[in-house]
Amino acid sequence: MRWLRYRHGGRVAYGLVEGDEVLEHYGDPFTEAGPTGARLALDAVEVLVPVVPPTFYAAGLNYAAHVMEAAELVGTPVNLPEAADVGYRANNALVPHGAEIVIPSDATDKVQYEGELVAVIGRRCHKVDEAEALDYVLGYTIGNDVSERTWQKTDRTLWRAKNTETFAPMGPWIETDVDLDALTTTVRINGETACRFATNDMIFGVAHFIARMSRYLVLHPGDVVWMGADGPTLDIRAGDVVEVEIDGIGVLRNPVVRAA
Amino acid sequence: MRWLRYRHGGRVAYGLVEGDEVLEHYGDPFTEAGPTGARLALDAVEVLVPVVPPTFYAAGLNYAAHVMEAAELVGTPVNLPEAADVGYRANNALVPHGAEIVIPSDATDKVQYEGELVAVIGRRCHKVDEAEALDYVLGYTIGNDVSERTWQKTDRTLWRAKNTETFAPMGPWIETDVDLDALTTTVRINGETACRFATNDMIFGVAHFIARMSRYLVLHPGDVVWMGADGPTLDIRAGDVVEVEIDGIGVLRNPVVRAA
Repeated sequence: MRWLRYRHGGRVAYGLVEGDEVLEHYGDPFTEAGPTGARLALDAVEVLVPVVPPTFYAAGLNYAAHVMEAAELVGTPVNLPEAADVGYRANNALVPHGAEIVIPSDATDKVQYEGELVAVIGRRCHKVDEAEALDYVLGYTIGNDVSERTWQKTDRTLWRAKNTETFAPMGPWIETDVDLDALTTTVRINGETACRFATNDMIFGVAHFIARMSRYLVLHPGDVVWMGADGPTLDIRAGDVVEVEIDGIGVLRNPVVRAA
Repeated sequence: MRWLRYRHGGRVAYGLVEGDEVLEHYGDPFTEAGPTGARLALDAVEVLVPVVPPTFYAAGLNYAAHVMEAAELVGTPVNLPEAADVGYRANNALVPHGAEIVIPSDATDKVQYEGELVAVIGRRCHKVDEAEALDYVLGYTIGNDVSERTWQKTDRTLWRAKNTETFAPMGPWIETDVDLDALTTTVRINGETACRFATNDMIFGVAHFIARMSRYLVLHPGDVVWMGADGPTLDIRAGDVVEVEIDGIGVLRNPVVRAA
């Protein structure tokens, strides 16, 4: 099932995507939902971020090749993470499928995509072990962890580098039926493949992260965990269209502009 | 005015604190609110965190003496921040005034308080300059940025060190009438003063942080900015009661327990 969050006629709702239609539902997939009977054309609704998370988690460095490349980019030593220590991103940066990524006027040209799998927590999760951790996931969506590499090097935190307004596109929807091992992530710039990697080739997998986090934290319905990116990350520029596709989930597409 | 968020009779509401009473309001102070006419005894309501922020910002290292002490504690060089680079904390860690701080069973004894001023954003704030930044603040509350110092040293991120469940007490209410320069922060353990500092003696003040953040971010109603802590931070243990008082705002009091 694909849960789309959308606005139509001034109202925000969840619906199930079937082909080019949305089956409107009351409620939401985290508590209770049911069909209202209404069907809308998919291209007639305004797509919203699939959930506004209570807490926005990000695995960060979670693919070996990317860790090495990122270290080279920012000029720091290569340190493969020794434990699944989760990080954070900020809700202010979230934008939906289709929205513009706005590069600030004073950013350098080193603004890059990072295509990521996003796990969406479906129910309260505390002190679960790895074998049962995935039972707490409602489904998966796609994130683009847009990063300004010079700020990533100079600032004390990642606030501008990764949390500038519009730097966290997420969507288009939450897919509930996913075989993690079968997934491939592909990033395209203007239709040309820029990178492609086996989505589940992570240093620490989704179940491991959730189990470890849940020892110290309560994960809540709607929390999201961005799982990190692999492969080369290239510069994106005003006029580009960036697509992150994870086969079996969908395509997250966002045009790039630069603020005047 | 003091805006308290509370639960009473199964319902969550905002009210204004007057003496030992709460004047119930409809709505909330971020959009529209007005008195319902009902008055409740302050000790008859369940105090909640004064706001669940859309994004939870934290200034981090923002007092010179604390930067030097923290560097010594975790064994890193002293680097005074050169710019107001804001960081983040996680909503999952928030607990209200009165709630227990629960030290995990596998934490060390190096769990410490950090008493902080918290600015609560009142309205949408984008690209404002320093002179007008404080006009976007609804008011101020108090935070205790509880920190496990060994995890702060060993983990790649601050996820366990500062965002373990219950490690972010915030409250008791939002005080709208505050003279920043007149404030003193006092932390007491079991009634004895553990540290005291001039609240506004920051490296980068509230107005500077908000103005700089707003160049790259949109601050939203209910966003909170924890402004950092000064002075010695001492260990807190099961059985202790920690109070962070900022005169003119109030007292945030939380008992400490250790998980079995």
